[in-house]
Order: sequence, then structure tokens, then C-alpha cells
Amino acid sequence: MPNSTARYQSGDPQYLEKRFASRAAGMQASEIRSLFAVASRPEIVSLAGGMPNLSALPMEMMASVLNELILTNGAEALQYGSGQGHPKLREQICEVMALEGIRANPDDVIVTTGSQQALDLISRIFIDPGDVVVVEAPSYVGALGTFRQYEAQVVHVELDSQGLVPEALRQAISSVRATGHKIKFLYLIPNYQNPTGVLLPADRRTEILEICREEQIFVVEDNPYGLLGFDRPSPNAMRAEDTENVIYLGSFSKTIAAGLRVGWALVPPSLKEKLVVASESSILCPSNFTQLTISSYLADQPWRNQIASFCELYKVRRDAMLESLEEFFPPAAVWTRPGGGFYVWVNLPPEIDTKLMMPKAIVAKVAYVPGTAFYADGFGSWAMRLSYCHPTPERIREGVKALSGVVKEEMSRRSSAFELPK
Amino acid sequence: MPNSTARYQSGDPQYLEKRFASRAAGMQASEIRSLFAVASRPEIVSLAGGMPNLSALPMEMMASVLNELILTNGAEALQYGSGQGHPKLREQICEVMALEGIRANPDDVIVTTGSQQALDLISRIFIDPGDVVVVEAPSYVGALGTFRQYEAQVVHVELDSQGLVPEALRQAISSVRATGHKIKFLYLIPNYQNPTGVLLPADRRTEILEICREEQIFVVEDNPYGLLGFDRPSPNAMRAEDTENVIYLGSFSKTIAAGLRVGWALVPPSLKEKLVVASESSILCPSNFTQLTISSYLADQPWRNQIASFCELYKVRRDAMLESLEEFFPPAAVWTRPGGGFYVWVNLPPEIDTKLMMPKAIVAKVAYVPGTAFYADGFGSWAMRLSYCHPTPERIREGVKALSGVVKEEMSRRSSAFELPK
Repeated sequence: MPNSTARYQSGDPQYLEKRFASRAAGMQASEIRSLFAVASRPEIVSLAGGMPNLSALPMEMMASVLNELILTNGAEALQYGSGQGHPKLREQICEVMALEGIRANPDDVIVTTGSQQALDLISRIFIDPGDVVVVEAPSYVGALGTFRQYEAQVVHVELDSQGLVPEALRQAISSVRATGHKIKFLYLIPNYQNPTGVLLPADRRTEILEICREEQIFVVEDNPYGLLGFDRPSPNAMRAEDTENVIYLGSFSKTIAAGLRVGWALVPPSLKEKLVVASESSILCPSNFTQLTISSYLADQPWRNQIASFCELYKVRRDAMLESLEEFFPPAAVWTRPGGGFYVWVNLPPEIDTKLMMPKAIVAKVAYVPGTAFYADGFGSWAMRLSYCHPTPERIREGVKALSGVVKEEMSRRSSAFELPK
Repeated sequence: MPNSTARYQSGDPQYLEKRFASRAAGMQASEIRSLFAVASRPEIVSLAGGMPNLSALPMEMMASVLNELILTNGAEALQYGSGQGHPKLREQICEVMALEGIRANPDDVIVTTGSQQALDLISRIFIDPGDVVVVEAPSYVGALGTFRQYEAQVVHVELDSQGLVPEALRQAISSVRATGHKIKFLYLIPNYQNPTGVLLPADRRTEILEICREEQIFVVEDNPYGLLGFDRPSPNAMRAEDTENVIYLGSFSKTIAAGLRVGWALVPPSLKEKLVVASESSILCPSNFTQLTISSYLADQPWRNQIASFCELYKVRRDAMLESLEEFFPPAAVWTRPGGGFYVWVNLPPEIDTKLMMPKAIVAKVAYVPGTAFYADGFGSWAMRLSYCHPTPERIREGVKALSGVVKEEMSRRSSAFELPK
């Protein structure tokens, strides 16, 4: 090997870094990534991850779907496909969305590698550096990461137990505009929001849609959990009420299987071509194999019953979590009571820093996600997200109990720290 | 539905377009996309697409691999996975790369949704608007599309029958630098290049690596066809010779199945974290399901023999194409003679415009890709790419014969147009 390699490289270990684009500064690992490595150890009760629980999915059935697919249509399943996604799956996606009141044309659906890719592509198409994206407070960590990579400014708007507060949205829009910044869109998760689990009721949906139309801000409605309501169906999707000012994102990750990485965007027709071109540039085309796996499953299996099984599985876990929070957590803590989805949001007294508290929780063999992960601005230090989707109910009780001990100790340590020495 | 929807939207059909980011201007459908819709009709002999030929892949074997995977490891295969890609597959990828002389650490491999995603992520990390990317003339249409989306300026450097011309690279670098622009990297496909089919010999690889080190320009080596040499193995990968200044992109699309969308990047350690963070923002994680399908296949099936079968299948088709070009094409046409891969590049006399000629070819029931698709600057109007990978040898002969008729007629029409009227 020529000497020159050693010469110039060892002289400058930052050779590649110096060539980064300016946007690379926003590519920082989220604080929950390193956490997940620890939380996945078997002795830890992980209330951290949002991994779907696959114990209700019959593997024999999946194996038979795949066998049939490969033997009857393997040459298509294993080949490149369309950048927009497979036409048959796009029709079936419209049937799935009809459950939430959406009437859509398969031509306006773009299949993506999980709905995360749709978020990425929408950011790519719309966000110039410095543009504002309005989100709930708190919001999905993966969306915040993407907006940051496209150098957006994220503005959080108050969310209460009924979801995004319309009046706070009005105020935020007018404050942002007073500073001269452009608002590109409102991003929200109306059903069983990540990370809080709250549901936006129908009347607020209508009011928020009206505000956004008046203010000419379009809405990105992210809906991975909409079919996972435990007690009653979710209200109609916002896209059902407004076909022109809403980009809707859906996913099979929580209703079938996350490992297939199949999501989609339903967009106004004027946006379709740009989105397809952006997706082709990003991944050429989504996997025919995973798309046709889902398509065969939807065509031949009782998928509505399967979703009902998932709901039953998650409901039992939600109950276990709420009951054990009630039983073990101190009165100063308050939390949400989700009617579906995966998450409970807990607010502790403001002197608690849940990020600093994490190592103690790990010692007590329980993990959660600190609240700051869900804010773009460092807020949320006294909050935490607890997921009940994956562990057994017994493990959830065990984890919540262990965590309550850590919280109580932290509260007493913090309050004694403020006492004067005797 | 409130009236306001109809009011403001119908008043401004360009509502969304007006909110696009500036980079959206570069998101234009490539000229070959609309073509593919026509070329895929069964009556057309398509020499246009680069779709791998799956007729050599035993579907019973794939079905059995999948059955075993789901029944023994379904809960992992259908779950979210790591952003960097599955550790076992990353080890196996290192074994595959060893065939081309690469010694690599699985820690430095990032699995992507096809190598297209790796191209997208590298562009995202490195390209600021206006930066220069140096590529072969002509180059892969999908890479050009990605570079355009990140607002790069693409500079093409001469390629001859032995690949990129080192002296032309030196000159291009010095010309670009004289204009004050920053060169971010050299992108090239050393093995059976897309679209020309040419192979870069070992001595030029070394010379190009030396130039790039001297000039402090890193190399993106895209290698989807490296294992598809028909007569002899390809020279060692450029990455085998230079571990620090080369980012290597690989893919299973041409050696196993494109529909799985599994590719990878092998990067210098200093780049890994940024690439993983960028990928998580783009797709959260690659599909465990498709990764483990490939991993099981590599572990349990004779994959080297399978690649040998693919080579045999493509070699027969390459021979059919070269023989029929020799037999039917006019003496004024010249073409490359690939030793592997999927493509032949044909130069016609300069008065021919292959884009304008396309409708006539379609009438004659044959399709190809016009040369301009492979240049960022409109060059290549008298060239075309012919793919031999997919049709049968008989259909290839039929297609080349039909195309030769179209070319001859176009040549005689063009030359008579320059004659004076009698």
C-alpha cells in the first residue's frame, strides 16, 4: 500500500468530519438510543421501548402466508417494484383507512419503509433550514430527530389530557409569525399519542383543522395507533374531515409487524409526484417482498380479529400499569390514563430530573424514557414515558413497583437537600 | 364539512407547491420512469430496465428458508431491529466482501434499504448546496437523481473502454478547484459499470486512489455487479487497497433478490455514527425480516453456486446481445463489450437523437434507455444503454434486430435531411 495513505490520514483524524455538510451538525444520536442497549438486558423490566408485542401473532399462519406467496408469486415478490408502492397493497391500504372514515384513492397513497420514511420525505420536500414545524408538547422522538436533520425549528404547543389545546395552537401561530418565521406544518398524533397516550376528541379535531385552514398551515396526521383503541373505536381520522389540507401517515408496524417496515402516506394529489421522486431517490422502491407479505395477509387472513387480539393483549397490560401506578406511586406524581396505544406519561415533582435518575432505575432493574427525549428544547426533565406494550402484566407490576421505590427515594433525597443543616 | 375548505383551496391549487423547500426544485422524475411503464408491456422487448433475472433462483428453496426463519425466529424477524442493521448479517456481509479482497470489521458495516439508501445518506451527510460531486461520464441515473436532490453540482469525467481515465480525473479536479468550488467526493462503479458495462483494471484503481488521496477527495465505490464477472473474477475492490479514503457500497439486489431491498455501506469508523443516526431519521431501522431472510439464505444455502448460476444465465444473454449487435447494427455504431454485469453502451452517429427515436423503437416493439439519462448535463443524446439481463436470448436477438432497423432508418432519414433538394 502506498505510504501516502498513512501520511495524510493519520495526520488528520478529522478528515471526513471536516467535509460534512452543515446539516450534519443536527445528526446527533437521541438520548434514548444508548439507553435501549441497557434496557434490553433480560434482567431489566423495560418500560422504555415501544416494541409491539408479537406474542398474539400466530407464527404458523405467517409462515403459511409466506410459503404461499413465494410459491405462487415469488418472481414478483423478489423483484424491484414501483417507487410508489404495489398497486394491490395501495388498494388494501384504502380499505384499512376506511375503518377511520377516510375515503381515499389508491393513486394518492405512497408506500414507505415504515411511516418514518414518509416523515423524512415530507421534511425533505417542505423544510428549508430555519422553517418552523409546530408539534405537540411533548412529541414523538423520531419525528423530532428528522425535523432537526432538516434544520427546522420545532415549536411545541401545549397538550392536556384531551390532546393538543386549540387555543394554545392559535397563540403559538401568532407568536411565531410575529417573529417573521415561516411555519411549514403542524405535526400531531391524534390517537393515543406517543409519548402521552392521550386521545384528541372529535370536536378538537374539527377546531384544529379549522385553525390550520384559516392560517394556511397544513397538517401532518401521524396515526400508528388509531386501530388500537381498547374500549371504543377512535374518532374519525382528521383526514376524513379534510381531504385537502391533511397529509396522513399510516403504518402496519403496530397492527401486523414492525419488522416488515411497511408504512404509507396519503397525500393531496398535487404532492404525489414529488413524494414518489423523493422516495425513489431515497430507496429506489419499497420492498415488494414485505409489501406482498402484508397484501397476502390482508387478503387471506382475519386481520380485523388479529387487531382485536392485539387490543386485548395491550388492554390487560395498560390495566396492570395503571393499577400498579395507583398502588405504588407517590401522591405527588400524576399520569395519563390512555384508552389505547402503548404509553403512559408520568409527571413527577419538578425537582426530580428523570435523566439523572435513570442509572438508579437501572440498578433497580427497571428502565423508562426520560421526558426530555420528547422535547426539542430540553424541557420535560421531571417527566417520563412508560411503555406497557411489551412486558407481561406481572413484569409491569414488578417494574412499576421498583420504579416507585426509586422515585420516592429521589423525592426524599431532593427535599432533604433543601433543608438547612441542623 | 366547513365551507372554508372549499374556499381557500380551490382559490389556490398551488397551495402545497408554494410551501416547498428550495431543494424540491431538484425533485424531477427521471426521463426513464415514464418509459418503464411503456417498456413493461409484454409485447415490447425491453432492453431498458436493469431488473435482475430471477429464473435461476429456486423458489422452493426460498420458501423453505422463509418457513424455517419464521418458525424458529419469527419473533425477532418481525420485530423492530437495530438502526445499524442485524449483527449476524453484518458479519456475513464481511465474508461476502472478502471475495473481493476486503478485510472489514462488522462494526463498520451499516445495512441499508438497498444501496440506494446508502447513497442518499452519504449525500445527506456530505453535500451542501453547490458542492461538486465527480462522477464517470456517463454514470448511474439513480445516483445522479440523488445528488441533484441534495443540490450538488455533478462533474462528469471521461470514461473509456477501461473505465474512468485517471488523467482526465486530474484535469477535472484542477478545473473545478480553479472555479473555487468544493469537491466532496468521487463516485464511481469500478465493476461492469452502469450504464457502460466497462471494468476498471487494477492499475487504474491504484492510480485513481493515489490521485484522490493526494487531492484529499474521498471515494464512493459503488459495487453492485462485482461478483457478476462472466469470464474471470473482478480485480480486488478499491476498498481492499485503501481502508481510510473509500466508502464502499454493496448490495444483494443482483446476487440474491432485489425485492428484499438489502444493501450496505462499509465506512471508515469516524463516519459510522453519523450514518446510523441519518439512517434512523430516514427509516428508523432496516427490515429485520428481509435481513434475516438473507442471513438464513447465506448461512444455509450454497450461495456461491447460486451466483455462478446467475453468471451463466447473464453470460448467455450478453453473448446473444453482442452477437446480434455484430450481425444487425450498422458499421457507424460502436459499443462496449462487457465482461460481466447487465449492460452494453452503444454510441450512434452524433446526428441521431436517441430520445427522439424512442417512440419509433416502441412502435418496432423494442425499448432502451436514451443516453441523456446518464448525464447530469444533457449530454449523451446519440447514445443508448441496452440491458441484456432480463429477456431470453431469443428475445434479445429479436429486440436488437428490430432496434437496428429503427437505427438504420433514422440514420438514412437524418443524412437525407442534409442533402440539398434536387
